[in-house]
Amino acid sequence: MRISQLSAETDVPIPTIKYYLREGLLPSGEQTSATRAEYGEAHVRRLRLIRALLEVGRLPIASIAKVLAAVDDEELGMHRVLGTAHYAIAPATTPPPDGEEWQRARDEADRLITGLGWRIEPWAPAREELAQALYTLARLGMPMDEESLRPYTRAVETLVEHEIGILPLDGPRETAVERLVIGTVMHGRVLDVLRRLAHESASARFFGVAPGENGDKAHTDS
Amino acid sequence: MRISQLSAETDVPIPTIKYYLREGLLPSGEQTSATRAEYGEAHVRRLRLIRALLEVGRLPIASIAKVLAAVDDEELGMHRVLGTAHYAIAPATTPPPDGEEWQRARDEADRLITGLGWRIEPWAPAREELAQALYTLARLGMPMDEESLRPYTRAVETLVEHEIGILPLDGPRETAVERLVIGTVMHGRVLDVLRRLAHESASARFFGVAPGENGDKAHTDS
Repeated sequence: MRISQLSAETDVPIPTIKYYLREGLLPSGEQTSATRAEYGEAHVRRLRLIRALLEVGRLPIASIAKVLAAVDDEELGMHRVLGTAHYAIAPATTPPPDGEEWQRARDEADRLITGLGWRIEPWAPAREELAQALYTLARLGMPMDEESLRPYTRAVETLVEHEIGILPLDGPRETAVERLVIGTVMHGRVLDVLRRLAHESASARFFGVAPGENGDKAHTDS
Repeated sequence: MRISQLSAETDVPIPTIKYYLREGLLPSGEQTSATRAEYGEAHVRRLRLIRALLEVGRLPIASIAKVLAAVDDEELGMHRVLGTAHYAIAPATTPPPDGEEWQRARDEADRLITGLGWRIEPWAPAREELAQALYTLARLGMPMDEESLRPYTRAVETLVEHEIGILPLDGPRETAVERLVIGTVMHGRVLDVLRRLAHESASARFFGVAPGENGDKAHTDS
């Protein structure tokens, strides 16, 4: 198909598609003349993947480029692709000035991970993220330890076994890694939004308000 | 304490504290002279709450102001405060141009919520978020229905019951609502980071790589 059809097919404006082509996020089409290139289903799929990482995953273009490079690297095993995706979606954490308290949180995070028997690289950014969450919760007078974290660790262990279990590993590598990356980003978003929905619902029940009183409409405006 | 002590206590620079005072995020201290004000533990706690919503919750100042206003509004029930927090942390979603497919996703999201028997306000932004996730997943060839969402809905229902159950409702309202808001934001972050950690670990096991091969170090640089 022409770039115009590709644009119509994916709701991505032509200038944006050209930008992705220049940035190497999208492989160039098959040149049919000096001014024309043909694009195929692979381009449609790739564009949708880019938009998903951008709009739902909220990844910067540079991170998306890294993830796609890993997806396209035939040499790279599934696990390495996943690692690349993880490290790309991990939000930047800035260690607080209080070095000592921070170091305690950092050690606590490592202790928890070891205690769970999880296999996590020493340089995994999620270690810092967990430390930051523990540090902040402690300062807010709501410290969490292995015990209070258990409902969360149990929940994610179950979910993750399920997510890995449904990966189409018998098909082509490309499909499997694409789904791995999409799942990592999208299922995380699904879990987050469902948690907030369940929270609103449980709160409506627990605090027994009449329907129509969940944080009044005004708060949603502006 | 003086503003300088308040700053030292909370690692928040004095100019930032003054900015929060001007914006009304932080109640003014007790004026002891024309140029001096005394601050107390309440100010320390409030500053830490602001930083948590800002740094870990990643909320814009305007949303934080809304949440704090709800926390301080004695008239507002727990559930309304929670609603305000939820609607403040919900990321903005832009409906895709494809009106028809989007409407289907929107309806599907509503159907799912009804099917779960969840009590969610019609205007809850999380409905749009769920619709966007379903829409994107469908376009990526990974549609999710009630069945495939069940592991996630089960997990969040369990977690949320637990979170509501541990709220200190016998204490003063202020403590309860503060913890409710902190929990909504922080426990969501904890769940997200633990999920990614469990994912990395399960992947290391499942794809049977030797420790040291989780997405190589290079990907974490820059």
